[in-house]
Amino acid sequence: MKRLLVSAALTMAVLISTGCQTLPPPEGRELRGTGDLGLIIERATGSVLVVDHSEHAVLGRVEGLGDLSHASVVYSRDARYGYVFGRDGGLTRVDLLTRQVTDRIIQSGNSIGGAISQNGRYVAVSNYEPGGVNIFDSSTLDLVAEIPAIYTNAQGEQGQSKTVGLVDAPGNQFVFSLFDAGEIWTVDMHRHPPGVERYPAGKEPYDALITPDGRYYIAGLFGEDGLSMMDLWAPEQGARTILPGYGKGEQRLPVYKMPHLEGWAIADGYAFVPAVGRHEVLVADMEDWRMVQRIPVQGQPVFVMASPDNRQIWVSFAHPLNDVVQVIDSRTREVIRTLEPGKSVLHMEFTPRGEEVWVSSRDSNRVTVYSTRTLEPVATLPAQKPSGIFFTNRAHQLGL
Amino acid sequence: MKRLLVSAALTMAVLISTGCQTLPPPEGRELRGTGDLGLIIERATGSVLVVDHSEHAVLGRVEGLGDLSHASVVYSRDARYGYVFGRDGGLTRVDLLTRQVTDRIIQSGNSIGGAISQNGRYVAVSNYEPGGVNIFDSSTLDLVAEIPAIYTNAQGEQGQSKTVGLVDAPGNQFVFSLFDAGEIWTVDMHRHPPGVERYPAGKEPYDALITPDGRYYIAGLFGEDGLSMMDLWAPEQGARTILPGYGKGEQRLPVYKMPHLEGWAIADGYAFVPAVGRHEVLVADMEDWRMVQRIPVQGQPVFVMASPDNRQIWVSFAHPLNDVVQVIDSRTREVIRTLEPGKSVLHMEFTPRGEEVWVSSRDSNRVTVYSTRTLEPVATLPAQKPSGIFFTNRAHQLGL
Repeated sequence: MKRLLVSAALTMAVLISTGCQTLPPPEGRELRGTGDLGLIIERATGSVLVVDHSEHAVLGRVEGLGDLSHASVVYSRDARYGYVFGRDGGLTRVDLLTRQVTDRIIQSGNSIGGAISQNGRYVAVSNYEPGGVNIFDSSTLDLVAEIPAIYTNAQGEQGQSKTVGLVDAPGNQFVFSLFDAGEIWTVDMHRHPPGVERYPAGKEPYDALITPDGRYYIAGLFGEDGLSMMDLWAPEQGARTILPGYGKGEQRLPVYKMPHLEGWAIADGYAFVPAVGRHEVLVADMEDWRMVQRIPVQGQPVFVMASPDNRQIWVSFAHPLNDVVQVIDSRTREVIRTLEPGKSVLHMEFTPRGEEVWVSSRDSNRVTVYSTRTLEPVATLPAQKPSGIFFTNRAHQLGL
Repeated sequence: MKRLLVSAALTMAVLISTGCQTLPPPEGRELRGTGDLGLIIERATGSVLVVDHSEHAVLGRVEGLGDLSHASVVYSRDARYGYVFGRDGGLTRVDLLTRQVTDRIIQSGNSIGGAISQNGRYVAVSNYEPGGVNIFDSSTLDLVAEIPAIYTNAQGEQGQSKTVGLVDAPGNQFVFSLFDAGEIWTVDMHRHPPGVERYPAGKEPYDALITPDGRYYIAGLFGEDGLSMMDLWAPEQGARTILPGYGKGEQRLPVYKMPHLEGWAIADGYAFVPAVGRHEVLVADMEDWRMVQRIPVQGQPVFVMASPDNRQIWVSFAHPLNDVVQVIDSRTREVIRTLEPGKSVLHMEFTPRGEEVWVSSRDSNRVTVYSTRTLEPVATLPAQKPSGIFFTNRAHQLGL
């Protein structure tokens, strides 16, 4: 009996041991590349889906991310971790391999997006309340620097400005705009403490973009016509106004949603720009910022995005005409197809080499994948009120 | 005693079981992102190093890849597998996570590079002997298509041309040039069998590049002055000659090594082009392909590469002046620094967002990492006769 028991116990030991070696790894622990992964924001439920864009597959759902309306994502330089910026000041680090939250902090009362530094060491968050930018260690989410956006208003009173349009720039910089102060600030993360420079900009910048090479920072203005542009190769020249006829002065219809500037398409020396409050996509020559063409579309454009090969411009729209997407041929500058991916289209993301594009339809609870060649759907994925779609190749692109 | 033994056995069982959960995974089996990995070719030993560019670390060496002189690498769309194209016709698939060869075939007698299709499904190899292109399934390396480059020469005899300058292009195409036939061929992988189109080009194309958006395919010519360019947005127009003064006509010194066309820098509407056989980098306006400037450098340029932010142009050189690298400011178009990374510099690779650049020195058996901000070395890594350096973010870029 003694021997039998021991033997049984040893057998059990061997079984357990062997099981470890040969059973498939637990869910989310399999060895795999991270180059074809992504996160989809489920805004109503505070969750994100981890997706595989090679297989058109949802790999899992990660929950507990708080208020994800207007949420966005940047990625660690190894393309393993997504940093999710929530509306409630939450900053959450998600491991796409284990599909778990590794770190989560509430770093302000109200925030509007973020960025990761060129070297991948710092994650910055743009805040409304209190106004300013907070910068964290990307490995630990420990606070590295607080940059309160303090300014003096026309009445001589000091305040903290809402900050918007936060992006990373070459030289390990962050750049952002102050809505209340009408300024653009640059932050040099090579200096200790970080070196902050301030530049006057136009009135009430509400969003901004940086060109793909990180040279031009362009802020949209709510308080006046035109946009403020800084050449980061010559910051000493400050911001200048471009497209002076652009903005509120364009407004002929009620503006249902301010266009996203990150969504501008830069193709072949031309910028394809959503008109504010008009059913048009504008084409500007980036050489002299002259407006060269107005392309009629079916609603007020929100995102105007170029495919990676610059052949197509995909346009999403503001409420109430937001159940369709239109595709423009960048050569003929004509709408070549009107697609109906579902109700309330909120975002689009191209696969890295551009053979497909993923489109989220919030009120149809699905994401539709289109072939950019045939313009036909090739897959649909279920999602709960999906909004932003972010693939991991953003890890490798300046300004994303 | 009985109880004691059982207890000991059970303890052992628990220990073994726990050990499985907590011991680090075997070498090369740890869960990690693949966005910051790369391969370095060790040409003399038929091996590659797997490196981590976040940590400046060599993770391991993979051996048994045959003749790796002039070897190059493309990546699977999940950024896990590297496809290594050897000089001896070898095509090897390396798993960067397990650091093992998963598949290896000898697909011709003599080959010169390859490409992966836009959708990641096909890997193509450009062959000298016998001349043509072979196309494989990227998961299995099973042969999918053979495209012998058959042509008729001036004497009316049929032959198989050496093929060069093979790249991927939008629309799931491959594009390559026929050295002996003076033609450019496109291959549409959406058709079954693949659809091949032929276009006359200049005499003896020896290499080619495709612009980052996949629109222009440009082949260098050995047999005449100038280059052949095809606009892939309008292939029906065929190839036309650009930079007619470029090439052999430029030659004032013996040409020690033909420049690499993949190494052309495209920055801000200008192409920075290695002069053939002259100590100059040429600057051409891509609008009209007019040569606008000649920048004097210290030797015959081989690679002329723009940093991801287009601020710097890094230049490597042909024998015998190949122990230095020069850095040009793309705005002033002047050499701002001459660096000495080691003997026989063969290749350079920027980190994806451009904060650093890795430089291989074959005869110093090392790779030196420079900061693009300070232009000072920040790390060196030992390597055996290193040549090409290839980071996994290439997985996401058309033409790479």
